[in-house]
Amino acid sequence: MEYLARENDPSPGGTFDSLSPTTDTNSTDSEHHQVMMQRCLLLARRALGKTAPNPVVGCVVVQQGQIVGEGFHPGAGQPHAEVFALQAAGVRARGATLYVNLEPCNHYGRTPPCAEAIIKSGISQVVVGMIDPDPRVAGGGVAHLRSAGIEVIVGVEETACQVLNEAFTHRVRYHRPFGTLKYAMTLDGKIATSMGHSAWVTAQTARDTVHQLRAACDAVIVGGNTVRHDNPLLTTHRDFQAGTSTDNPLRVVMSRSLNFSTTTHLWETAIAPTVVLTEAGVNLQFQQYLRQQGVEVVTFEALTPDAAMSYLYERGCLSVLWECGGTLAAPAIAQGAVQKVMAFIAPKIVGGITAPSPVGELGLTTMTKALSLERVQWHAIGEDCLIEGYLPQGWNRTL
Amino acid sequence: MEYLARENDPSPGGTFDSLSPTTDTNSTDSEHHQVMMQRCLLLARRALGKTAPNPVVGCVVVQQGQIVGEGFHPGAGQPHAEVFALQAAGVRARGATLYVNLEPCNHYGRTPPCAEAIIKSGISQVVVGMIDPDPRVAGGGVAHLRSAGIEVIVGVEETACQVLNEAFTHRVRYHRPFGTLKYAMTLDGKIATSMGHSAWVTAQTARDTVHQLRAACDAVIVGGNTVRHDNPLLTTHRDFQAGTSTDNPLRVVMSRSLNFSTTTHLWETAIAPTVVLTEAGVNLQFQQYLRQQGVEVVTFEALTPDAAMSYLYERGCLSVLWECGGTLAAPAIAQGAVQKVMAFIAPKIVGGITAPSPVGELGLTTMTKALSLERVQWHAIGEDCLIEGYLPQGWNRTL
Repeated sequence: MEYLARENDPSPGGTFDSLSPTTDTNSTDSEHHQVMMQRCLLLARRALGKTAPNPVVGCVVVQQGQIVGEGFHPGAGQPHAEVFALQAAGVRARGATLYVNLEPCNHYGRTPPCAEAIIKSGISQVVVGMIDPDPRVAGGGVAHLRSAGIEVIVGVEETACQVLNEAFTHRVRYHRPFGTLKYAMTLDGKIATSMGHSAWVTAQTARDTVHQLRAACDAVIVGGNTVRHDNPLLTTHRDFQAGTSTDNPLRVVMSRSLNFSTTTHLWETAIAPTVVLTEAGVNLQFQQYLRQQGVEVVTFEALTPDAAMSYLYERGCLSVLWECGGTLAAPAIAQGAVQKVMAFIAPKIVGGITAPSPVGELGLTTMTKALSLERVQWHAIGEDCLIEGYLPQGWNRTL
Repeated sequence: MEYLARENDPSPGGTFDSLSPTTDTNSTDSEHHQVMMQRCLLLARRALGKTAPNPVVGCVVVQQGQIVGEGFHPGAGQPHAEVFALQAAGVRARGATLYVNLEPCNHYGRTPPCAEAIIKSGISQVVVGMIDPDPRVAGGGVAHLRSAGIEVIVGVEETACQVLNEAFTHRVRYHRPFGTLKYAMTLDGKIATSMGHSAWVTAQTARDTVHQLRAACDAVIVGGNTVRHDNPLLTTHRDFQAGTSTDNPLRVVMSRSLNFSTTTHLWETAIAPTVVLTEAGVNLQFQQYLRQQGVEVVTFEALTPDAAMSYLYERGCLSVLWECGGTLAAPAIAQGAVQKVMAFIAPKIVGGITAPSPVGELGLTTMTKALSLERVQWHAIGEDCLIEGYLPQGWNRTL
């Protein structure tokens, strides 16, 4: 899982000698390209959850088999990965090969185009993991490099590159953040007991994994029931250790009633920011209370999962984690706000006829209509199991 | 899984040259003992599901590093494994080592004691996987062999031996068959849609595995809801290929109402035997109809999962597979009629607020009281996942 491989070193450029893989002169070019691209991905992952709305990008400059410069994009408004890597390489970039997991940009955004910087540096070969799906780039970066006489190879470790930036690609393509539904259930399919008690379904290792997952996302969404029953923090639980709250995602509550206690963890905005999405005119007094606590309140004519995702897109989010119960998970799935499912399964039996399951009403009456996940993976996470996969694209349009 | 390793060769004795593992003269005694005990287990598994109320036992006789005789116990009333192996070895048993996964018996049952036969054959060393928990043996077989001057080693591959005969041990210890609850659910914890439709949750490979599992059990139990909704066959689906129905378990229906259609697969007893458990005086006309179809009808004062298991114990069953829905699974668990859980999980989402989950009401109100499975294993079964584990012993006595 991408978020497990993440490292904490925040320095976005340099040579990272101690971390550099040794290059094997006996390996073929193709193997060497793969190793260097994997290094780009490792660098890129360091900023996972911090770059929105930008992709995560890592870059390595290799001169005669030796890494002479590396870098990654630390976040929006800061230099791109290529700039850090070329800076570190200096004159050693001349005649060198540059590896980057995403096509170098060819346009003036908040920073000048990287393709131009690469050409100026004297790089003679560029190896690209995947074409940038951003329509402002979309092959233009590669074309620009080639027109300058640089040899360009595209598609090394392409699947891994696509997966790492799946949220960015989804955002660019559909104008919505990438949604992941995460839940923890017992082996008999319950996310809580019949009394609503859910602490804890899974063991510590799985819960730690969820904290890492949150750090790699831009926003976490829950509904009113989860707030009332669980009173969650929805943080990465790293605040006090690291002395920084930048790891915490935006905490988002969807509620049409605002029927909440005033003493709720999510209203404590010193820990992490919270935004409450509701409908116009609902419980104005409580809205005022929330604003006094530093909670943002955003009102909609009709609050739906898609409306929430549209709002979070405008706000610049790449990836959103749905940590809600079944009542909200069902419309989120039905409206296409969920692309990926991550189900943590605890090997325990709790029973309960009215005990809730992870997904509410989808209106599917025969088992043959069930949504089969694609690209399914199983992982042991401590004593629990994580099953993850992708919902079929466009299935909800034919529901 | 034991039932997957099962072979179909029904011949209970011989030398099985083509199947014999080669003995490695460089291996230590201990490794050699393990290899031979694994061979005993492989032989024993050939009769899994056919020996009730007896255990499954395999036996190998080794003379100077060569297998000179092998055998397994094919079923109650037939000779024990040791007898087949010694017959095959003949005079080559003199001075040889005999391997057997379960302690040789020391008492006259339906057959004479094996300990006596071993002594008479001239065997000089016996390697035993586990002591027989049957109080009529319980170490007596080993003591008898030792008193005759035979060297006896006990406990080689003991865990594997215990697992293979877990049903036999449970039966002897608790006077009940060993119960396994098997269910297939979606990744969101549903065994059917809100309309009760359940064909099929899992894919073909998982369903084939269930057929193998049935062949290794003595009885399969369902409740009335499963009969009405699914109209299952509950067979191994091998009938017509093999030309024999001995692989099929006894099909058991628990129903207090006998509110069934006359055209139900389970009443077709030419395929496999069916017994219906009900309460005294219920729907006598339908009872008569069932008996006319060749279905056994057994009445109880109060029909409970434990009463059903007590009946199946008296009938000689070792292992019983609960293939019921949540309404029956919950009291079966609560009454200690389930020792093991086998959950097949299909990576698909179906939703449904009223869609049933695998376990009904257990009365557990906090997640901390959930029953944590022990000795949990995960297996990929085609595109589905199988999670299996054991319920904690005696938990229901403190419920």
